[in-house]
Amino acid sequence: MEKGQLLYEGKAKRLYATTEENILFVEYKDSATAFNGEKKEEIAGKGVLNNSITTLIFDKLKSAGIDSHFVGKISDNEQLVKKVDIIPIELVVRNIAAGSLANRIGYEEGTPLSRPIVEFYYKNDDLGDPFITSEHIDVLDIATSEEVQALYDNGLKVNDVLRPFFQEIGVILVDFKLEFGRDANGQVLLADEISPDTCRLWDSETKQKLDKDVFRRNIGDLTEVYKIILARLGGLSK
Amino acid sequence: MEKGQLLYEGKAKRLYATTEENILFVEYKDSATAFNGEKKEEIAGKGVLNNSITTLIFDKLKSAGIDSHFVGKISDNEQLVKKVDIIPIELVVRNIAAGSLANRIGYEEGTPLSRPIVEFYYKNDDLGDPFITSEHIDVLDIATSEEVQALYDNGLKVNDVLRPFFQEIGVILVDFKLEFGRDANGQVLLADEISPDTCRLWDSETKQKLDKDVFRRNIGDLTEVYKIILARLGGLSK
Ligand SMILES: Nc1ncnc2c1ncn2[C@@H]1O[C@H](COP(=O)(O)OP(=O)(O)O)[C@@H](O)[C@H]1O
Ligand SMILES: Nc1ncnc2c1ncn2[C@@H]1O[C@H](COP(=O)(O)OP(=O)(O)O)[C@@H](O)[C@H]1O
Ligand SMILES: [Mg+2]
Ligand SMILES: [Mg+2]
Repeated sequence: MEKGQLLYEGKAKRLYATTEENILFVEYKDSATAFNGEKKEEIAGKGVLNNSITTLIFDKLKSAGIDSHFVGKISDNEQLVKKVDIIPIELVVRNIAAGSLANRIGYEEGTPLSRPIVEFYYKNDDLGDPFITSEHIDVLDIATSEEVQALYDNGLKVNDVLRPFFQEIGVILVDFKLEFGRDANGQVLLADEISPDTCRLWDSETKQKLDKDVFRRNIGDLTEVYKIILARLGGLSK
Repeated sequence: MEKGQLLYEGKAKRLYATTEENILFVEYKDSATAFNGEKKEEIAGKGVLNNSITTLIFDKLKSAGIDSHFVGKISDNEQLVKKVDIIPIELVVRNIAAGSLANRIGYEEGTPLSRPIVEFYYKNDDLGDPFITSEHIDVLDIATSEEVQALYDNGLKVNDVLRPFFQEIGVILVDFKLEFGRDANGQVLLADEISPDTCRLWDSETKQKLDKDVFRRNIGDLTEVYKIILARLGGLSK
């Protein structure tokens, strides 16, 4: 598959056309960003790590019966995916209070939730990705109620697969963000990436943060902790 | 009914015990506050206006079949209400984009919504009354799912009654906040107040703001515009 025209450059990835209409080339960049792009740094090796981690996670989901846009890893920092029309909603699933949720409801970070919480955020950089509900989604007309239900159900399914998957390797899945799109048939498909950029992952014993919070909060070396995740997933030699 | 012990002093009202266990004495204060109490002013006459306006609105709701805590107005700035155990949720119903919703979803203030939006806020001054959903309510364990449904349904019912009620007097009901509590039988009951402190009310023709936004934004005289509302409700001579 040949890498065609650059279609979009985001904060963490570049998308390229391919010779196949419905397939995109994704190149994982070495950029780390936080707070809607206000904090930004180049971190050598990050792209390779996230490309590998995302691959292993989409593979796991596939074997558990959850489809995604993922087609295949084709180089250290590149993968092929099915092209989708991204729904501008970030779905966040939470098992433990952290980040904005801890602030919102006044829970100390690390407090387990009595049930998973699913939140919707409007993927809109100008508005700072605001927290919204299905009613705002309806008014904004960015997804149908059937699509919102599909996002919700898929979010919980992904959680049901990934939580024990991480637990087996000594990692707590605190929370994570998913993006979805509409494929060529208009079907809702899990897209984007699932990596330490988009999940909160804590060591089960020490509670060490093994995710982008080390960068957001300046409390550790990003590639060191992403390498721990990749190694535990069994992917460091690949 | 005798005014007993002061039980609670809030930002806008004082609650007193009475000789009846399940009845409270509410005294409307002349204080105006905004931004979680950061902006504060004494405004002579405000208490009398809000006591009268709330009375007329609870009367209207009653005649439309919607129960509330309201028992009766007993003086210019006092009324009797049924004592409830307040549920710490502020229910906001919106017909037109304004305030935090306009900012949240990037709509110009004044844009009509394609449907009413119901929002929940956690009534918690320390946390700044954060925007939450039924899932946060479930985790916080501040209301049962049946109670949340009752709040939601009542919010829309109140909107269905008050929107045309205000329209008839040349006022647009932009949005409003409700509070509910559990009565002596554990039933959910509409409580607190419904006034220009808790509603956004715009003149239908000129779009002049006839509510607390004149105080929040320093764009007019509060008692002047509250008087317009009271007069249009037919209550100025009382
Ligand atoms: N399968 C896909 N088809 C089309 N676009 C996608 C797909 N998967 C992810 N995207 C989009 O690719 C863009 C680039 O990713 P990223 O660098 O993370 O961007 P952003 O800065 O918006 O977070 C994002 O807008 C993301 O939603
Ligand atoms: N029927 C009722 N029984 C008990 N408390 C009530 C009732 N109606 C309203 N309240 C509560 O009375 C308090 C005083 O009102 P207010 O001055 O508006 O307080 P606040 O500063 O909390 O907004 C509020 O906490 C409100 O929830
Ligand atoms: Mg992204
Ligand atoms: Mg109040």
